[in-house]
Amino acid sequence: MSVFTPVSDGQLAGWLKSYSVGAPLALEPIAAGIENTNYFVTTSQGRYVLTLFERLPAAEVPFYLELMAHLARHGIPCPAPIAGLDDRYLSTLNGKPAALVTRLEGASVDNPGPGECAELGALLARMHLAARSYGGYLENPRGPKWWRSAAADVRPFLDAGSAALMDEELRFQAQHRFPDLPRAAVHADLFRDNAVFRNGRISGVFDFYFAGVDCFIFDLAVCANDWCLVHPENDRRLDGERTRALLGAYAQVRPLLPAERDAWPVMLRAAALRFWLSRLHDKHLPRPGELVKVHNPAHFGAILELRAASAAQAPWTG
Amino acid sequence: MSVFTPVSDGQLAGWLKSYSVGAPLALEPIAAGIENTNYFVTTSQGRYVLTLFERLPAAEVPFYLELMAHLARHGIPCPAPIAGLDDRYLSTLNGKPAALVTRLEGASVDNPGPGECAELGALLARMHLAARSYGGYLENPRGPKWWRSAAADVRPFLDAGSAALMDEELRFQAQHRFPDLPRAAVHADLFRDNAVFRNGRISGVFDFYFAGVDCFIFDLAVCANDWCLVHPENDRRLDGERTRALLGAYAQVRPLLPAERDAWPVMLRAAALRFWLSRLHDKHLPRPGELVKVHNPAHFGAILELRAASAAQAPWTG
Repeated sequence: MSVFTPVSDGQLAGWLKSYSVGAPLALEPIAAGIENTNYFVTTSQGRYVLTLFERLPAAEVPFYLELMAHLARHGIPCPAPIAGLDDRYLSTLNGKPAALVTRLEGASVDNPGPGECAELGALLARMHLAARSYGGYLENPRGPKWWRSAAADVRPFLDAGSAALMDEELRFQAQHRFPDLPRAAVHADLFRDNAVFRNGRISGVFDFYFAGVDCFIFDLAVCANDWCLVHPENDRRLDGERTRALLGAYAQVRPLLPAERDAWPVMLRAAALRFWLSRLHDKHLPRPGELVKVHNPAHFGAILELRAASAAQAPWTG
Repeated sequence: MSVFTPVSDGQLAGWLKSYSVGAPLALEPIAAGIENTNYFVTTSQGRYVLTLFERLPAAEVPFYLELMAHLARHGIPCPAPIAGLDDRYLSTLNGKPAALVTRLEGASVDNPGPGECAELGALLARMHLAARSYGGYLENPRGPKWWRSAAADVRPFLDAGSAALMDEELRFQAQHRFPDLPRAAVHADLFRDNAVFRNGRISGVFDFYFAGVDCFIFDLAVCANDWCLVHPENDRRLDGERTRALLGAYAQVRPLLPAERDAWPVMLRAAALRFWLSRLHDKHLPRPGELVKVHNPAHFGAILELRAASAAQAPWTG
């Protein structure tokens, strides 16, 4: 249960007087989410999500809110921040930075098929195209610089085999940087639980609070490592059909450059490394007051080992 | 049938490549609308309305599109313009200025009851509050200056009684200006056919192409003269229950100032005059190529006469 900051009905009603969304009808805490306090809010106007930012640096929050607003006004089905009467997206509630965003309709899919992977790929390509005109800039906060710092933090907790895998991967990634690949602000955390579907179509993507400027192909690799596994726990190889569906639908909207195709195996490893490191960090160095269950880091350690071993098998070479 | 500029499936598909809304699935002309060419557009992403601007001065279109975008991001259920990959709302299609906006769900109500009038009043108040932070400026293009010019144009076509009514009302309005009443960009044309309802709640307001900066209370008077008649054709007096529902729900969200209450009878007359004049103008001086059926001007002439005769009966005095 991730409600760090309680909000009462009366506090909500007072706060909503600064918005044009009508009177509150319901307030319901959301258990999921590890970084912020979230509530479902229903008003006479519609359904929203209220987020109180618990840990993000206050100076960085506008980057995320403006990114969502930018994508929403380009037609991307993501939470659209609601501006208050002061014309700002960011406000304060109970002493915390707070924002109201639209609530998306639909349900997440635990076991996506090729159809859902194709829906995701097409939407991701449209997001990438739309993000190119976004003026905000924040380097991916979980990029290579963070990898090195997180690796130094977690190394004391690793056995010799894991430490060697980590050091070898950091060395490999440092030798394979792609500064010239197309990039913009990307989601960078688009796991299955951050997307919803309705009637077989993708109806929303959310939780942009790990977004940052990075390569488009890295964003795709993050998705493949979660959406396209042969089995989500028992066989972490990439399923050929779903991977081709993801990449094929993406490329129909935004054709991939040869350099992006060449980078694919490296990006799959980079994406695995990033989540292995963050899960190791969450497990071994939990922040004070952290209330949520820690994901098992071994999952992404295993993915990294597999991707490093099968780097040559790019889906478009078969 | 108001399609002045035909658009083919192929032209639409090409044009949509500059947007992030997916591939087109359907294109359907909209018969209603007297100023622009409108199509319903369905894509793999959602449902939209495509508008080709036929008559609005190109320099004024951004005022309307930015107003809708402003209101939409404040949570007002109005058409939200979709930005293209160039990050602009306004584009060109078949040589005409063109824009894509979201399509609202719901149905118009021919015979609104007190519940629907209250829904409208509350939403109108929220729109007015949200509009105060809108930075665009365009004086109501159908304001007093236009009344005088339109009156001069149509006077030759009027019988003596109508000409006297018109001249008397212009004189009366000139003596009763309210420059200090709260104002901002208002819809100014929110008739029943420009709003939709779903499950008894107002789910959208649209057709902002007569919007302009004017008094909030004028906007309310425009609504009352269409939504609150005892009978839409046979008895043009204001129905007390529905008028009180409209004004009461409005005032719960945005309390009316004493000066606004004082101005109410004058504003009902001003609102009647504005639509009487525009319908007279459309009838007697149709623009070349005008294809639509002309509304009967006598309807608003009769409303004006009634309002002028019963000016003292403000709903809050009873």
